[in-house]
Amino acid sequence: MNRPKQSKLVADWERLERIFIRPEDDDCKEVLVKYMEQILFGLHEFINKNVGVTEEISLKELTSSFNETLISPEPEKRLADVISDIIYQIAPKAVNVASPYFVGHMTAAIPFFMVHLKAIVAALNQNVIKLETSKVLSVLEKQVLAKIHRLIYGSNSEINKNLELSKNSDLIENEKFSKNLRFTEEFYNTHVQNVDTSLGSFTTGGTTANLTALWVARNRFFKPFDNLSESQSGDLAFHSFNDLSKKVDRVEKFDGIESEGFAQALRAYSLDNAVLLVSKRGHFSLRKAGGILGIGNKNVIPIDVNAQCRLDVRKLRSTIRDIKQGGRTGIIAVVGVAGATETGIIDPLDDIADICEGYGIHFHVDAAWGGPVMLSEKYGYKLKGIERADSVTIDGHKQFFMPMTCGMVFFRDPLAMNHIAYHSNYVNRQGSVDLGIKTLEGSREANSLILDSSLKIMGTRGYALMIDHGIETAKQFADEIKRRELFELITEPELNILTYRMVPKEIKKHLKTADPAQIKILNQQLDNINIAIQRKQREAGKSFVSRTRMTYRPSSDEVVVLRSVIMNPMTNITILNEVLDEQERLLQSLSDVKI
Amino acid sequence: MNRPKQSKLVADWERLERIFIRPEDDDCKEVLVKYMEQILFGLHEFINKNVGVTEEISLKELTSSFNETLISPEPEKRLADVISDIIYQIAPKAVNVASPYFVGHMTAAIPFFMVHLKAIVAALNQNVIKLETSKVLSVLEKQVLAKIHRLIYGSNSEINKNLELSKNSDLIENEKFSKNLRFTEEFYNTHVQNVDTSLGSFTTGGTTANLTALWVARNRFFKPFDNLSESQSGDLAFHSFNDLSKKVDRVEKFDGIESEGFAQALRAYSLDNAVLLVSKRGHFSLRKAGGILGIGNKNVIPIDVNAQCRLDVRKLRSTIRDIKQGGRTGIIAVVGVAGATETGIIDPLDDIADICEGYGIHFHVDAAWGGPVMLSEKYGYKLKGIERADSVTIDGHKQFFMPMTCGMVFFRDPLAMNHIAYHSNYVNRQGSVDLGIKTLEGSREANSLILDSSLKIMGTRGYALMIDHGIETAKQFADEIKRRELFELITEPELNILTYRMVPKEIKKHLKTADPAQIKILNQQLDNINIAIQRKQREAGKSFVSRTRMTYRPSSDEVVVLRSVIMNPMTNITILNEVLDEQERLLQSLSDVKI
Repeated sequence: MNRPKQSKLVADWERLERIFIRPEDDDCKEVLVKYMEQILFGLHEFINKNVGVTEEISLKELTSSFNETLISPEPEKRLADVISDIIYQIAPKAVNVASPYFVGHMTAAIPFFMVHLKAIVAALNQNVIKLETSKVLSVLEKQVLAKIHRLIYGSNSEINKNLELSKNSDLIENEKFSKNLRFTEEFYNTHVQNVDTSLGSFTTGGTTANLTALWVARNRFFKPFDNLSESQSGDLAFHSFNDLSKKVDRVEKFDGIESEGFAQALRAYSLDNAVLLVSKRGHFSLRKAGGILGIGNKNVIPIDVNAQCRLDVRKLRSTIRDIKQGGRTGIIAVVGVAGATETGIIDPLDDIADICEGYGIHFHVDAAWGGPVMLSEKYGYKLKGIERADSVTIDGHKQFFMPMTCGMVFFRDPLAMNHIAYHSNYVNRQGSVDLGIKTLEGSREANSLILDSSLKIMGTRGYALMIDHGIETAKQFADEIKRRELFELITEPELNILTYRMVPKEIKKHLKTADPAQIKILNQQLDNINIAIQRKQREAGKSFVSRTRMTYRPSSDEVVVLRSVIMNPMTNITILNEVLDEQERLLQSLSDVKI
Repeated sequence: MNRPKQSKLVADWERLERIFIRPEDDDCKEVLVKYMEQILFGLHEFINKNVGVTEEISLKELTSSFNETLISPEPEKRLADVISDIIYQIAPKAVNVASPYFVGHMTAAIPFFMVHLKAIVAALNQNVIKLETSKVLSVLEKQVLAKIHRLIYGSNSEINKNLELSKNSDLIENEKFSKNLRFTEEFYNTHVQNVDTSLGSFTTGGTTANLTALWVARNRFFKPFDNLSESQSGDLAFHSFNDLSKKVDRVEKFDGIESEGFAQALRAYSLDNAVLLVSKRGHFSLRKAGGILGIGNKNVIPIDVNAQCRLDVRKLRSTIRDIKQGGRTGIIAVVGVAGATETGIIDPLDDIADICEGYGIHFHVDAAWGGPVMLSEKYGYKLKGIERADSVTIDGHKQFFMPMTCGMVFFRDPLAMNHIAYHSNYVNRQGSVDLGIKTLEGSREANSLILDSSLKIMGTRGYALMIDHGIETAKQFADEIKRRELFELITEPELNILTYRMVPKEIKKHLKTADPAQIKILNQQLDNINIAIQRKQREAGKSFVSRTRMTYRPSSDEVVVLRSVIMNPMTNITILNEVLDEQERLLQSLSDVKI
């Protein structure tokens, strides 16, 4: 650390030891702390500037200094130089997702202490795949998972009290696995540190959480069976000879889809096909999961939504009926969304649960976004029905305000994850408590430490403040959009997400009297206008909203909409008004548009 | 930050603002820096003690204080208290993976600066799924991937020079996609920032890297086709009417397995089955990938290894021949291992490449562990043949010494990843440069910044120092094991991993003259002894080796072996001798064993 500044850097053993051995003298320590100070505060210099989606630099210019592809044999830089480079060269060209004007995506400011917590996780460098490289962190992970599981499925948390009103309180004490019942404290005492059961797992994000849930659902659907040994144990009497001869092709023994693969699974269950049914507004990771799992993303069937963008329950019911009538297609799972990526909408979870229970179908809820709303005493009721889901996805790096990359998946049945268990000789031995036995991912950092600490620092009410603020600010924002002549609200904010578009008065007037063909043309004009405004605002670099395409009612055209996510507690209606003001100015500046 | 210490914590807006708004006054800043100092140095107090796999505390005792499953409504703790708790309560019960005596797993000490770099990534909180939330970090990711791709596949890096000697240098200049050729600098200039191509992707670990590689391989194997439109364009002339009538069941149009699913893919390609061929010593994530992808883990066929624990090339060839002869089973990929988890052995990559090229089979190399050995001018030659792989897995959190959780996957063909592309309306739009289009994972942190910085701080030669040290220390360790009477080396260290077991003299003598049945009994005794020693050493908490089961030659019994991974540059032969000394003492202490 005390080397002269200008010496040429050489990779030698002395330098290596300096890097690895913990610094003992105070000078060294001081330097390393100084670096951390730079990181903590230097990096945020640029927050006072714009959102920085662009710094007036095109992608082409940006890439021009990132073309070298040879790794230098000798060291090029000291840590101090690397940190300065990041602060002065890299950070200003990154995106200031922490700006309260950055209201376009589900990535935003995180509490300051998260950087400390992430540094702790890195310094400990535990690998929670196995007890031998994590020990207490494996135990803590089970505890934190139980805490969130209880938030979803438990009966006697403060938060859930208001959700229990509609329930018969006698029933709640009953610990049976009926999906109408919430689990008692005793259930959690049994499972929190139980080495034979799993309430869920941490994942690296919502995508792998959804994938894990549907992987379990697929394997439960196509579970192993052994008709031969059943026959041997006396069940033969129940089959007439006729029955047996009719099904010459029948598979008598099946080791499960995980072992035998998809094609054999369909043969074993006498099916041609298997599908997932998903709200049309479900996240694209659900289609991807269908592709990865061998289901085929064509067989991830979108269920249409109603005027409020919620999954249309009648359509779900009729789709299931049609599929069941055919008799040759299996339904692996139905997926409901709690906080759709584009609209924030929550599907009618209780109604979907009714249908799934009736048919015995796995019900998965993708609450990657909306899950933490359960922490709010005011708005938690919106997720009513989630406690009946067989599996639930919740992201840590979204509304738990954790740093990238953290997701979670939960299962109502503590034995469900046995369907994806893998063992090996060197880790995850049969009977061990290694968490890596039942996870999609292998090596994993101890993210549970971050969530656990954050829950202790914030309390449910600290989180609820942020959740409530987002929902209420979005409501104000929607009112403002409806009030302004040049805007049209497309989807109301059920949570803290809404979509809208800009509509010049001239076009608004035309739209009222236009026939479907004319509407189509006008919508195309509006698409171009809204794309232009979103791009120009992004490029100006002061504020940022995103855009997507949505079905526009009453017509069935897909139209371009602007999308706002109010996640940052520092975003308020004053700031949002500025965003709208800027959009109005940008509309005026479009030379070819008549306002 | 200046609140009185003893006040009751309440979740209110004022406290929330303190947490979110960057601290402006110096007092606040000082406190936050102080916390970071505690993290940087306080956490490593316990390094001077033992490896701490146990702190004389049973799992039962350990779990007893992690049973509370209710989240507190009000804040329970301040950041300062959380940090102290972690330092004084949690860390001592974690595993000191950074100890040079911790030589049992692939998790070890990381350079001090990694904590700084991870803190930077958390502070920036970029999401590299899309350009709009990462900008320059997406660009940097492409560059870093190109650097490692060039290390694997490139022709003119310093490191690779010695690998080129056996090649015709005229050919090297030729940029065609022949797998015998290394790519020139021009190739990298073309692709490093090309928005239409991908040289690879960061993943969250080796498991998802392998899964991604095999996902691509599966989708390439079962790619879309359209015989009808080909027919229309004149190809019909090539089919006799006989041909067409013979295949009434033939699928004429197929959208690819990703879309249509596994069962339909097999029908389209007139196959009953599809398999992966993997070295018997391959990582269990490969079987898991088979299960997830719908192939079925029963169809992940282990190819036996030879006496050196390398994949037996003759057996691979004969297995492929048998499968091809049947004509109804497809071979999706052959997987070779470069640095097997249990033995560190590298499969004969060049031979496997020959076979795969001959049959046109996708060749994947799992170099999660061994990949960075390419950085060594001395030992890089050991991975000869990897440049002919269609895909390669390398872990960042293994021998690149990055913190958990970071893996990478690379593809020779810059268009290969198109087979797993997904788009949506709100991100990853068609034609965008969003990295999330072609990744298994969704949201991801900017780990490329850590690797890029580390490569600059270390240079290839800094990394090579560590790699060489591990390989050479393991060699010394093997010699010492062979020298000691009570030990038996089971696998020689090709890299920095070896396996051995303890054998009391009495039993060693018996083994020499025993018949197969007697050997079995003696091996069972030895298994019990070695399990006992590994456990006792782990529980004593001074040092740690792991254990696994290996085929013991010349018999075919699986026996328990002790496993050492020499990864920490501070681990030396003196320390390893202490580990062996302790094991000898433990053996003596086993009352029922005669030495």
